[in-house]
Order: sequence, then C-alpha cells, then structure tokens
Amino acid sequence: MQFEVKGKDTQSKARAGKITTDHGVIETPIFMPVGTIGTVKGVHQTELKNEINPDIILGNTYHLYLRPGTQILEKAGGLHKFMNWDRNILTDSGGYQVYSLSANRKIKEEGVKFKSHIDGSMHFFSPEFSMDIQRSIGADIIMAFDECTPYPCDYHYAKRSMHMTHRWLDRCINHLERNPPIYEHNQAFFPIVQGSTYKDLRRQSAEFIASREAVGNAIGGLSVGEPAEELYGMTEVVCEILPEDKPRYLMGVGTPINILENIALGVDMFDCVMPTRNARNGMLFTAYGSINIKNKKWEDDFSPIDEMGITWVDTYYSKAYVRHLFTVNEMLGKQIATIHNLGFYLWLTREARKHILAGDFREWKDKMVKQMNNRL
Amino acid sequence: MQFEVKGKDTQSKARAGKITTDHGVIETPIFMPVGTIGTVKGVHQTELKNEINPDIILGNTYHLYLRPGTQILEKAGGLHKFMNWDRNILTDSGGYQVYSLSANRKIKEEGVKFKSHIDGSMHFFSPEFSMDIQRSIGADIIMAFDECTPYPCDYHYAKRSMHMTHRWLDRCINHLERNPPIYEHNQAFFPIVQGSTYKDLRRQSAEFIASREAVGNAIGGLSVGEPAEELYGMTEVVCEILPEDKPRYLMGVGTPINILENIALGVDMFDCVMPTRNARNGMLFTAYGSINIKNKKWEDDFSPIDEMGITWVDTYYSKAYVRHLFTVNEMLGKQIATIHNLGFYLWLTREARKHILAGDFREWKDKMVKQMNNRL
Ligand SMILES: [Zn+2]
Ligand SMILES: [Zn+2]
Repeated sequence: MQFEVKGKDTQSKARAGKITTDHGVIETPIFMPVGTIGTVKGVHQTELKNEINPDIILGNTYHLYLRPGTQILEKAGGLHKFMNWDRNILTDSGGYQVYSLSANRKIKEEGVKFKSHIDGSMHFFSPEFSMDIQRSIGADIIMAFDECTPYPCDYHYAKRSMHMTHRWLDRCINHLERNPPIYEHNQAFFPIVQGSTYKDLRRQSAEFIASREAVGNAIGGLSVGEPAEELYGMTEVVCEILPEDKPRYLMGVGTPINILENIALGVDMFDCVMPTRNARNGMLFTAYGSINIKNKKWEDDFSPIDEMGITWVDTYYSKAYVRHLFTVNEMLGKQIATIHNLGFYLWLTREARKHILAGDFREWKDKMVKQMNNRL
Repeated sequence: MQFEVKGKDTQSKARAGKITTDHGVIETPIFMPVGTIGTVKGVHQTELKNEINPDIILGNTYHLYLRPGTQILEKAGGLHKFMNWDRNILTDSGGYQVYSLSANRKIKEEGVKFKSHIDGSMHFFSPEFSMDIQRSIGADIIMAFDECTPYPCDYHYAKRSMHMTHRWLDRCINHLERNPPIYEHNQAFFPIVQGSTYKDLRRQSAEFIASREAVGNAIGGLSVGEPAEELYGMTEVVCEILPEDKPRYLMGVGTPINILENIALGVDMFDCVMPTRNARNGMLFTAYGSINIKNKKWEDDFSPIDEMGITWVDTYYSKAYVRHLFTVNEMLGKQIATIHNLGFYLWLTREARKHILAGDFREWKDKMVKQMNNRL
C-alpha cells in the first residue's frame, strides 16, 4: 500500500491524500460505507459503484466469521469475489462487535470468549485468530485486534486495557509475518490507538502505535457515547503524534459534522453505520440539515427529496412518495434513503477533498457545519 | 384504447396483440408486475423500466385508497406522477382485497362494508365508489367492481353472486359515463366474468360481459385454490365467448406454466404476486425449473444464479452469495430475487409473443411446460 499527501489546508490540519492498493486508488478524505455481512444493506453492488462511487467499503469480521464463515469465503476466493466487488475492502478485527453484540463475553490476556448473538454457540477470538479470519476474508486493509473500551471508562481500566491492546498488537504483527496473504493481492495492516477519553493515555498509545511503523494507523474507542468535544479533543492529540505520511482512520465516526471537524484535525478515513442505519429509519442527511421523511409535513410535498441531485434518487422521487413508502413500510423507502444518504456522505468527503486542494477548506467547512446543523 | 391482433397461432388459440393507450404500447401476451401500494416491492422504478421492462404494471385500489389515499393521489396528479412511472398502469377494483384482507366484511346489493386491515376503521365500497377511487388513482385500465367468489363455492351462491356482479357492472358503466377521467389521459374500463368453476355460469357471465362491448374483458374468480385443470377449463369456455378483437385479461394467474397454458387458450394479459412474493421467500423461477435458493446445496455453488442472464443480476451474483443473503435475512437477497423473477416472467411472455408470431408457439410451449416443471 502506498500513501501520498496531495495537498494540505493552511488553516487546519486537513489533508487530501491518495492511497494505492492492489484494488486501486482511494482518494482521501474518504467515507467508507459499511457492508456488514457482505452487503451494504439495500444497495446493489452496481448502484454502490455507479451511483455512490466509494473507492472502498467496509466488512465486519465478526459477522462474516459467523456467516457465511471462512470456509465458504475461502472457497469463493475471498470476500471480493464472493460479493462481486472489485474495489477496496477494509475489515475491522471483530473486536468491536464481540463487545457490543455477543453475550457472556470474557476478556482475558489470551483473547475473548463469547457467545454468538445468532445461535448462542461459544466462540473464541484471539489476536492471532482475528488475523487468520481477516486473511480468509481477504480485505485490502485489515485491522489490529483491540479492546474497545466503553464510555465512560474508569482510568485504571482504560490504562490496563490500552496496554493489553498494545501487547495484542505485537501478537497480530508477529502472526501476520508468519502467515502471508492467501489470495493474489496484498493486505495492509493498521494498528489502533486506544486510551478512552484520557489525553495522557491517548498520547502514550499514539506513540506506541506510531513506533510500530505501520502503513496506516487508526483511532478506535471513540464515538461510543462521549460528547463531540471529547471526541475532537482525543482526535487532536492523537493526530499530532501519528505520522503525517501515513493515512489516519477514525473508526465508527460519525455525523456529517463530526466528519468535517475530524478532517480538519487531520483524519483521512471514516466509517459509520449512521448514513445507512438512519436511512432505514427515514432520516435523510442533506447539505442544509436532516429530514425526518416520516414526518406528516412531507405528506403532500411533491418536491424532490434533495434538489441537489447528488444521486439519481434525489430528483427522481418526491418527499411525499418516500414518506408514503415509509408509512406503508415498503422496502423501496429504505433503498431510496440509503442511496441518498451514502451518496451525500461520499459527496461530502469528495467535496472536502476538492476544497482542501483548492485552499478554502476551512471556510467551506465552517459554512457547511453551520448549514448542516438544522432539522428541516 | 386500441387493440390489434398481430398474429395468431394455428395450433392453439394463442394470439400476439398490441394495445395502445395514452401511456404507450402494450405488446401482448403480457405479464403485469404487481405494484401493490405504488411500488413493486424492492424494485426501483428505473430498474423496472430498464431491466424488467414491462409495458404495464398493476396497482391495488384497496391499498392505495387506504394509503396514501385519494386526496394525496389527486394532489400528486395521479399515481403515475406520484410514483414517477410514465408507462401504463392497471388498477383492480379493490374488491379482491376487501374479500381477502379486510375483516367483518358485509356484502350487500348496495356494496361492501368492511374493516381496514391496517387500523380497523370502517369503510364502504360500492361499484360507484370504486370507480371514483380509480378515477383518482388515474390508471390507464380500470376494472369493474365485482364479487370474487371463493373456491369451492356453492352453485346457488355462485349464481346469485354472478348476477349481482352483472348488476354492479351496469352501475360501474353508468357511473363512469357521468364521471369522466380527471387527468389528461383516458381510462379504459374492463368488465369481469365470474361464475366460479361452473361452466354454465361462466358461459352466461361471458355472454353478459361480452354484450357490454367494453374495449377489453377480464376473467376473475380463478386462481383461488382450484386445480389447474378447472382453471384451464373455465378459461377455455370463457375465451370461446369473449370477443376475439378485444384483449382478455386473466386476473391473478399464475405460475409460469399456468401462464403459457392460458396463453394457448387465448388469454392476453396476466398479473400475479407469485414472482415477487416467492422471490422474497427465496424461490427463483427459471426456464429449467424453480430453485429454492435457501437450500444448503447452494452454499458453495459459485455459479451465476441463472446462466441465461435475462437480467444483469442473473450473472452478476452467484447462487452461494444470494443463498447467504437469504440466510442472514439481508434485503439485497429479496431485491435480487425479485428482479430475477420479474425479469424471467417478462421474458416468458415476450418469448411467447415471438413464438406466436414465428408460428411455432405450441411446440415451444409444450417444451417449456415440461422443462419448467422441475425443482432444481
Ligand atoms: Zn502499552
Ligand atoms: Zn346476470
């Protein structure tokens, strides 16, 4: 994997970059749509490619491990072939879902024992096993197995957990060295900074992570309930330490405003279920604020769902029609809202890139943050 | 509305025709996808148009009356504009759903009183009111308000019901004469033959219906549980009586085999929820039989879902992938299966038309019926 910084904003830490992998170029800043179990919910691969146009999507190791399982994925030749997606894929390590979805989990130095949320069967994830699963899935970028602490988190727990995450990181690195990729393409490995909402821990963790000289670095354990100011504070101290010549990925973030503010702090990559999950609940993001399309006020509003027309659905379907689809609980409503929201998120990061390169990012960002902070 | 017979099969009653309305041409035989509440479930209007390519779709008066309601539909300028579909639409009269979905229904000479299946509210449909609703929806082809008898049906009940349907027909015709269309396009009106599974009643009803000299005629009250042989028997006696120079629409039919057999008996138009509903349950129709894609046997079958490649999904997605989507209950599975099944149904009626015009329909039909009668 290669990374080049193509331009920097002078009034913030924002940068425009270019990642190159065996599956092509990823222009940053980038939002990565979440394709949980081998599908971005409600969106055809062709629509994703032709309409939403992300250079990379995300898959969840925990979900893919449970179903279809690594045996099927290996027989298919990896996730790219299984789902017929020939652009980049990033997989998380499975840790986050183990903590948030599974039951009876027991975290020990060796790894995490947990019960599947599907059938209650017992499973065990270790740093080594997470690497093995991610080899089987075959994503272009794979993530370290970490512990993602909850918010709020006791200082002593956060510190102990951070050190364990660091030890787990070295186990991941060692295991990957002995177990090369199994498909024809390379897999870049990103370690993850932890440390909860404690600046000293975040600094310590960022220094440890940076010392491992990975091709890219991630910031985890945020967007777990902390106020936006704490999120920005952590990102800021971490981005000061993580090397400038490597991409920085802020995991699980966030709202359109969160994304712009974190780009301003030096983050290059984002993922979040918000655009897709909120879409399925009838919430549309636009450049002028968010729309609850289920609201009765749209009942006879026959104007397009978004005049900006970023994707074709925005001007093809009216607010009244999409509101009707949600009222009668028709799948098509979720499909339309998902394409709209992902189209908007990808437009937002593309637009951020343009403004960084044009030199007016800070001004544009401040205007957008204000403008998007409305409920329409 | 105009109808021309473009070709006739010499070894059966099959015909290839061309209906022309203000929303364009409908080449027959045709299968009309069911767009219940203003959406063909899981399919974008653009996909419907570009991939599945039907000249006409169906809407359900009962559902559209309940939600979004005629007031919203009228404000939108009718269903075509509301859902942004500029090809033909046919609406049923609402009767069928009143009988099958609503509760506490009371059928009297004046009309039918019933409870909404949504909120239990009381409503009343009469022949006149059904025409009013269908004027508000604005479909290109609208249907008479009839009583659809269940199967089996007592002879005396079937006879009384048939005569009431005939009286209701005249009330529909009178009401439509006094209440012209409210949008810029015309609406063709089709009466419906009833008579349960009694040949003498079907003949009587067909003669009564034919005497009204409508621009097209429909056969109702079939595909309600009777054996295929009884269905074909009824279609046969009715098609002998209904005029040859008018299109014949067999309501609610059916399997791919049912469709071909009824084309051979002189039917031109079909609709059925089977391709869409079965798709959502993981059943795929193909030219070589049906596939239960949820079956474990497809788990590691990475071949295309249908080598024939009628629609793009057929060769883009593998059986193993679609099976996975159904296993994890992901929307995309239903979306793929729906496009596939509708694509196949439309291919089937287009292909039937070609073979009628080419003069080898009977031979082709017999081969297809045999071939489709498999479980893969
Ligand atoms: Zn440490
Ligand atoms: Zn009569």
